[in-house]
Amino acid sequence: MKKQVSNRLSTAVSGPSRRAIGVGVVGLGTVGASTVRVLLEHQRETDRRLGCKLELKALCSRRIHSLDLSRVHRGIRNVKITADWGEVVRHPEVDIVVELVGNLDAAHAIASAALRGGKHLVTANKQLVAEHGLELVEQSRQSRTGLGIEACVAGGTPVLHAIREGLAGEHFTSVLGILNGTTNYILTQMEDRGCTFAEALAEAQQRGYAEPDPTADVEGHDARYKIAILAMLCFGAAVPVAEVSAEGIGAIDQVDFAYAHRLRHTIRLIATAERVAGGRLRVSVRPMMIPRTAQLASVHGATNGVLLVGNKGGNTMITGRGAGGEPTAVAVLSDVIEIARDMLSGAAGATPLGYTAWHAAKLAPLGQQVSAFYLRLVVRDRPGILARVSGILARQGINIDSVLQEPAQSKAALPFVLTLESSRQEHVAAALREIARLRFLARPPLLMPFWEQE
Amino acid sequence: MKKQVSNRLSTAVSGPSRRAIGVGVVGLGTVGASTVRVLLEHQRETDRRLGCKLELKALCSRRIHSLDLSRVHRGIRNVKITADWGEVVRHPEVDIVVELVGNLDAAHAIASAALRGGKHLVTANKQLVAEHGLELVEQSRQSRTGLGIEACVAGGTPVLHAIREGLAGEHFTSVLGILNGTTNYILTQMEDRGCTFAEALAEAQQRGYAEPDPTADVEGHDARYKIAILAMLCFGAAVPVAEVSAEGIGAIDQVDFAYAHRLRHTIRLIATAERVAGGRLRVSVRPMMIPRTAQLASVHGATNGVLLVGNKGGNTMITGRGAGGEPTAVAVLSDVIEIARDMLSGAAGATPLGYTAWHAAKLAPLGQQVSAFYLRLVVRDRPGILARVSGILARQGINIDSVLQEPAQSKAALPFVLTLESSRQEHVAAALREIARLRFLARPPLLMPFWEQE
Repeated sequence: MKKQVSNRLSTAVSGPSRRAIGVGVVGLGTVGASTVRVLLEHQRETDRRLGCKLELKALCSRRIHSLDLSRVHRGIRNVKITADWGEVVRHPEVDIVVELVGNLDAAHAIASAALRGGKHLVTANKQLVAEHGLELVEQSRQSRTGLGIEACVAGGTPVLHAIREGLAGEHFTSVLGILNGTTNYILTQMEDRGCTFAEALAEAQQRGYAEPDPTADVEGHDARYKIAILAMLCFGAAVPVAEVSAEGIGAIDQVDFAYAHRLRHTIRLIATAERVAGGRLRVSVRPMMIPRTAQLASVHGATNGVLLVGNKGGNTMITGRGAGGEPTAVAVLSDVIEIARDMLSGAAGATPLGYTAWHAAKLAPLGQQVSAFYLRLVVRDRPGILARVSGILARQGINIDSVLQEPAQSKAALPFVLTLESSRQEHVAAALREIARLRFLARPPLLMPFWEQE
Repeated sequence: MKKQVSNRLSTAVSGPSRRAIGVGVVGLGTVGASTVRVLLEHQRETDRRLGCKLELKALCSRRIHSLDLSRVHRGIRNVKITADWGEVVRHPEVDIVVELVGNLDAAHAIASAALRGGKHLVTANKQLVAEHGLELVEQSRQSRTGLGIEACVAGGTPVLHAIREGLAGEHFTSVLGILNGTTNYILTQMEDRGCTFAEALAEAQQRGYAEPDPTADVEGHDARYKIAILAMLCFGAAVPVAEVSAEGIGAIDQVDFAYAHRLRHTIRLIATAERVAGGRLRVSVRPMMIPRTAQLASVHGATNGVLLVGNKGGNTMITGRGAGGEPTAVAVLSDVIEIARDMLSGAAGATPLGYTAWHAAKLAPLGQQVSAFYLRLVVRDRPGILARVSGILARQGINIDSVLQEPAQSKAALPFVLTLESSRQEHVAAALREIARLRFLARPPLLMPFWEQE
């Protein structure tokens, strides 16, 4: 081996010889600034991978005139600085446009202009890809330009590349995971420190893990975009994201963790997409009871974890930092490098996102799903409650597996839990509608499925 | 969205139009037979990914004439069947040669003949890639043919693609993991069921997790090839695999798990490669004490787990089935699909294994590594032992952190444990050589470093 390798082995770069590939970045928020930094700081390594330089040629931010660019990075030189994204997209030396603005309409306009203009595109906008993914694929294919979306899901984990390349030989049966770091941080804080939802949320906001308006995270909308993208790549199918049911974590109480632990489970917000009968996909975001021994239960804090289930290779789990400037910037730069490689070999845009033929996914209704359930009621202490509730369940053909009651702090709000044997979701939902009308409830009931490892 | 997507969106395949890409498989052991099955059973999905058929054109096995091919798969038709691998490599309709023979010399000859003959190559032979990796890269580059090695490390996990593509924008500082399923199965059996090493090994052999001759697994040689390949891809450097220190698990006793648990740790065989000062790499395979809360500690049974540590994105962990026919076959087919994509777009062989410039890695001696250590002695009960041992340690400047003693079953073989404060490996090794000569030792001492999460 040694005789072939001197201290440095240089090999020629194939394709038309190029001095450099130009990159333009639109959006200089946390991710944009980190992307500029990582691009500049990893230049030597990138050179060795590509045999060609990646050069930052243009930067756009609406706030560009009030920004101190030397605080982003001291190495920003010979770069077009502008507040007009059109100048980045049209810049003759920009080959790859990196779109990192938060607003959907702006992101859509920038992405379309870039692809139509023959520029390669990298985006971190999950809503854009979830709602307009196939449109971007089609534009990318038509203009033979690369399309990179790794940063849209679980920032620091290479899950989309894993699906598209490392596990391309797999027939996936399901993909699921913890895709939102904010809610996972809140849940694990409630679990580990026994604080309330409101306290955990306030702390997440203080640490910058949660937005001032946390709705998109807490209500599961953010995870919904991400599971739609994961399903798209696993199944080669466009998922109608607006039809995906999303349930948040706002109703989860400390007491639910106490019951979960008694049942040797924990609670996580799980986004899941699976093939069901008839070629349909069942896609949802909701809190679930997870066995404490499952790998998903070991995903703590703001981390993300994705479980890919195949019919041959079994389970592959990828965990990593889900968000934050630097992990997302690494994902962006990884896409830029892949597109640059494809440019050098003439392959860019050949099979955007890994398929030449896409399906339109038909979603299966959640109602037909069968699983065991956790049902938590908070009632005013009153005799006969269990008889009423179990009567309603019995009329829907639902069997009770166990009844649990933790010591109550107050007689006016007495929590108790029923675990239900495997039942159809729609039967349980029907029973729940009846139960919710009962007068003795002090708070709305909480229903969560038990997740069963395949 | 919907108006753009009819039930099926077909897009043209770029590059010269092809009816099919031909695959030849050499070696029909467990992995070879699974590869044939997965290739045939995932055909529809592969078509959608590629827009082109992958067809099995040739099969070679030394035992081909005694094999019942219908038991491998009923769909084997119009396939050249031969006992001579040269017929696969030279077959005019074979574009991609899949090399799955166990023997190093045979694998080397097949791989070289394929690449020199202008065929694309996929191999699962870790020893071949660890020892001749750069030679294959050079041949692949010269003949502009693809080179796929995903199946060499942690079969069912897409870790090599993750390094090369999904995290290409990262500057890795270390890569480490549990890379051998056999030894992890043995260790977790010893831990969970309290059985001896010999009992756990016998059970692993019975279940097919361990070979009749388990040396390569148990002594850490298998993991050594794999860490050399991971380091190669993370650092773009050829690792002189013969120089990598490998220590096995044969000296680990049940009692070590008892002590490990008292210390809130567990024991895993860890392969690790990290950048150290002066541009060197420190690479080793050895059992380590792992905190029970670390993700690595949650890798159970025959599973593999790889932790990638970057200077920007933080930690990414990938776990999955490490070996076995089907997970390895999925990795092989994923490589075949990627090469087929590159063939269709004209990009095959452009940057084999992800770098255009390779370094020759210089290894750093383990002796300079600083960590805390676990030192277990088994002694004949005798006064003054601790004074002798601590005297030797003190002369090397090593501080004792704690002394632990589990109740002994016999006075003739009394185990006790010293945990040592952070010390240089070479100082501890020097002390150990002196301690090993002491007459009161009933068995050789066992030394393991404590792993510290970065």
